[in-house]
Amino acid sequence: MITIKDVAKQAGVSVATVSRVLNNHSSSSTKTREAVLAAASALGYQPNANAQALASQNLTTIGVVVTDVTDPFFAILVKAVDQVAEQYGKTILIGIGYHHAEKEKEAIDTLLRKRCNCLVVHSKALDNHTLANYLDHVPGMVVINRVIPGYENRCVSLDNQKGTFLATQTLVHLGHKRIGYIGSNHQITDEIERQSGYLAALKHYNLPALEHAIAHSSPDFEGGEEAMIKLLSFNSNLTALIAYNDSMAAGALSVLNENNIRVPSQFSVIGFDDMPIARYLIPKLTTIRYPIDLMANYAARLALSLVNESVIKPSHTQFNPTLVRRFSTESAVEK
Amino acid sequence: MITIKDVAKQAGVSVATVSRVLNNHSSSSTKTREAVLAAASALGYQPNANAQALASQNLTTIGVVVTDVTDPFFAILVKAVDQVAEQYGKTILIGIGYHHAEKEKEAIDTLLRKRCNCLVVHSKALDNHTLANYLDHVPGMVVINRVIPGYENRCVSLDNQKGTFLATQTLVHLGHKRIGYIGSNHQITDEIERQSGYLAALKHYNLPALEHAIAHSSPDFEGGEEAMIKLLSFNSNLTALIAYNDSMAAGALSVLNENNIRVPSQFSVIGFDDMPIARYLIPKLTTIRYPIDLMANYAARLALSLVNESVIKPSHTQFNPTLVRRFSTESAVEK
Repeated sequence: MITIKDVAKQAGVSVATVSRVLNNHSSSSTKTREAVLAAASALGYQPNANAQALASQNLTTIGVVVTDVTDPFFAILVKAVDQVAEQYGKTILIGIGYHHAEKEKEAIDTLLRKRCNCLVVHSKALDNHTLANYLDHVPGMVVINRVIPGYENRCVSLDNQKGTFLATQTLVHLGHKRIGYIGSNHQITDEIERQSGYLAALKHYNLPALEHAIAHSSPDFEGGEEAMIKLLSFNSNLTALIAYNDSMAAGALSVLNENNIRVPSQFSVIGFDDMPIARYLIPKLTTIRYPIDLMANYAARLALSLVNESVIKPSHTQFNPTLVRRFSTESAVEK
Repeated sequence: MITIKDVAKQAGVSVATVSRVLNNHSSSSTKTREAVLAAASALGYQPNANAQALASQNLTTIGVVVTDVTDPFFAILVKAVDQVAEQYGKTILIGIGYHHAEKEKEAIDTLLRKRCNCLVVHSKALDNHTLANYLDHVPGMVVINRVIPGYENRCVSLDNQKGTFLATQTLVHLGHKRIGYIGSNHQITDEIERQSGYLAALKHYNLPALEHAIAHSSPDFEGGEEAMIKLLSFNSNLTALIAYNDSMAAGALSVLNENNIRVPSQFSVIGFDDMPIARYLIPKLTTIRYPIDLMANYAARLALSLVNESVIKPSHTQFNPTLVRRFSTESAVEK
């Protein structure tokens, strides 16, 4: 890699002179200045961002911690933060937690060591105490998709329970009485809240919580297949289903198709998240929209505003789940 | 943020002493050492990676440039590089190019300014000359999914033409004679190679290149829908189709379903890439596997080996497209 020494040699001046020119000190002659800039350009010299960051304390990197970039939910989150970063002339640095507390901690620590003073953190494996400790030490840190008690104003989250309540209500209004739920086998708050929204709606509409109407598996396509097979095996005469997320709903649709149960004429399915896959399925999936793009945009601007007074703090917003009605839901037909 | 000055104050020693202790110099007493470490721990002090990188020249970041992390192809690429980075105790920094030459250049320049001496670059918008110039100046840079003439040993790519030849051959062997192709409207080499593989196979098997059997649109689900509608509108009595990628194939399946054309009994479809979506579709998609995970793993190890003699250079491998046979292809029925 080209160093400042190479530039000095090429320009026939001292390293100190090159440094003065490149840092815009006024003490060099125009001729020297031009010689240095010509040499730097000819050699393709890149000033060192590490040195610049130290010298100027002008920190230009937003750190983002996500679980796994190959999950579209996190990819959309990262892209939204990147777009805010770009708007403010900053770049992002990504840490990946892979569902493990230790990896999540390592990801945060690495970003802090790289002097990211803004962090948008998605953490499900670390406990509240650990995250509260980070929030105390890192004023520019914001937590997304989770609420840490005492730090509500630096947490951006969605009311999951309201989302599945809405999904269940939609099915009840279509006349469904035997509604199942397939959930995640990760015992994180998202799962607990989504299942409780479903149960709360059943209770609200005086419908019984049926035996064998709930199954859990991994929160992906294969898990959706497995959970759907469990529900069909118990033969509870369900006419509709709410899935923990769109990938599980996709797995359920696949199993229903293999068993010649037609969606939506014989069976209705509602997903959660409204990831791109929801639009690709046959039939296109009715789902609950999780506005992760808007939430990540908000979180990034909030994080920047916490460390930089010139960034206006975004006005506090409550993010709401909403129904996206497509073609996987229809009125119930009594069996 | 906690600085070395805070640690010095808390420990009751000078900044220089703290620095000596934290950098493992042996000149401090055990007592001083313990006091400094206790203070650093109590305050949650994080040593500054910028300063450490400068001091040690031990560069620990691999830069990755991709087009868009929300495309699963790039998400899988990033994850594979991250896993290699982790294996070697390094982290990654991501730049996003969004299909624009200027953004791609900016992404590379930003990573270089941050002193990433290893780069895995996916660039389609920059010209060969610009990339060759970067390769000349950055010894640890590797290009993925593209070949820059003269730098073949630092480029990792797949024979796209072979992939669509294989797809077309598969359909010919199933008895299909009227085979269409839906391609990307981005004029990048991938599209040119994939279309030419399809045409070469038709020629090889003495099948005519039909009029109105090729349509182009955006390389996504909506583009697949649009291109499929074009092909159906021209009514060329096609019985099979090769899509530029799995997302376009998904769009085609959706339009075929809406038009009551059954896949695979009436119409066969083959995708390209073998992204997760291929397994989620109904029917599950027969496709050509693009081993981007293996290729990105190779590219990352190659990049590390170019700047670090202790990393063994991975033996050169030719990556091959392969057929993944699922349920969207069947023998042709004469119309």
